[in-house]
Amino acid sequence: MTLRFHKMHGLGNDFVVVDGREAPVAIDGALARAMADRHRGIGCDQLILIEESPHADVAMRIFNADGSEVSACGNATRCVAQLIGGEATISTAAGLLHASRTEGGISVDMGEPRFGWEDIPLAFAMHSAGLPLAWETLEKPWAINVGNPHVVFFVEDCDAVPLERLGPLIEHDPVFPERINVNVATIVDRGHLRLRVWERGAGLTRACGTGACATGVIAMLQGLVDSPVTVSLPGGDLSIGWAKGESIRMTGPATHVFSGEAELAAFGA
Amino acid sequence: MTLRFHKMHGLGNDFVVVDGREAPVAIDGALARAMADRHRGIGCDQLILIEESPHADVAMRIFNADGSEVSACGNATRCVAQLIGGEATISTAAGLLHASRTEGGISVDMGEPRFGWEDIPLAFAMHSAGLPLAWETLEKPWAINVGNPHVVFFVEDCDAVPLERLGPLIEHDPVFPERINVNVATIVDRGHLRLRVWERGAGLTRACGTGACATGVIAMLQGLVDSPVTVSLPGGDLSIGWAKGESIRMTGPATHVFSGEAELAAFGA
Repeated sequence: MTLRFHKMHGLGNDFVVVDGREAPVAIDGALARAMADRHRGIGCDQLILIEESPHADVAMRIFNADGSEVSACGNATRCVAQLIGGEATISTAAGLLHASRTEGGISVDMGEPRFGWEDIPLAFAMHSAGLPLAWETLEKPWAINVGNPHVVFFVEDCDAVPLERLGPLIEHDPVFPERINVNVATIVDRGHLRLRVWERGAGLTRACGTGACATGVIAMLQGLVDSPVTVSLPGGDLSIGWAKGESIRMTGPATHVFSGEAELAAFGA
Repeated sequence: MTLRFHKMHGLGNDFVVVDGREAPVAIDGALARAMADRHRGIGCDQLILIEESPHADVAMRIFNADGSEVSACGNATRCVAQLIGGEATISTAAGLLHASRTEGGISVDMGEPRFGWEDIPLAFAMHSAGLPLAWETLEKPWAINVGNPHVVFFVEDCDAVPLERLGPLIEHDPVFPERINVNVATIVDRGHLRLRVWERGAGLTRACGTGACATGVIAMLQGLVDSPVTVSLPGGDLSIGWAKGESIRMTGPATHVFSGEAELAAFGA
């Protein structure tokens, strides 16, 4: 069976996107892992499967390179929207997302942030604002769920944080029963912050869309920045807009690199 | 302009192959680097350009992921032969190579090895067998040119050698004015050896075809193995056949993974 796919990226976070509406394809963890292999497969951070949806324009599923399935990926959502024409309602495991084409690229309504301890989730009932926890110099993070769970630390210089060492410690701390994405941010001015993210299951990445959402919202709640804020990640910039009681709006580029065709047998399937 | 390409690999050493005979395309170092980028481009260890040749079935050029052009790559030669039908004479910067399809995959005549100090090259006139040099526990390598320059060390257990540390020291030693590929090998029996390679300009790789050729020939010259010898690299096995005064014959797999189409503009070209 011939598999058609697209290779896309958002700020260097790269995806193989398979449109299962044209020809339904059964993708499991093993096939996703084989396709994501950068030397013997196609190569990507995440494999995205577009499917028919009864209540949205399309549904999308997200597989990490290790074969595990995740519920939310902001960069991938922009790429899917770009691929299907810009204007779309996309059903994800994290909820219904609305996308539109704007001057800054693709704008996606990422849903409302959640702060309840059981929503994030935390292991114990406690207030998610300024958790009474510390990992060396990183202390009192805010916890938030924007489709997936995040903690956010504001520091003097995010580039100076040894995130490759502290990230996995925080990710696997038992206080986070579903593990956690770790954001370290530095405020530049009221319209701009810098951000590095340790991604749950992926490690240090060039750009984490949901991390930008989480950090933008927390920075606004703390009164450190105004909406919209430009979030500078190592891979480039995203714009995050939000007001209390509303959905988060994330705007940024989505780039189509190439289209491909492979025989499924090439991946051992 | 639309660029058509193939993604292939030999033992996990992966290539983007562009057949410039269909539609001539000007590839320079900057374009090769952009296409080789694994997140924002297509992704590969080397970019291979097939061109018309006046004195062979095709000519091939090889660009590393850093944009530099190199003269020989055994794994890429098998992939080009596979792509154009198996039987072929291929013109490379290292000479004319002959390929055929055999039971073990694609078999390539890699030309005759050279041992002269000016052929390798070495910085001084000296015998290339058992160079009077040592880098910690690695000593007295044999030097050889099989289209590109190699030194070969035989050790008790090649997996125990800290090649990620010693490889760059040896590669950049001034005794090798064009730098060098570094092979550490362990004899298993008269028909089998294990090999790890530090590749000039690429570092530790899964499989180096010319390293297998270089090491097989030196092992035969030292009377350690018989021809043909199976060379087990981290990425898989190659078979190396050789007799004095003859060309080296390298046999192994060549795998087509997918075909793709991109706009040249996607790579900033």
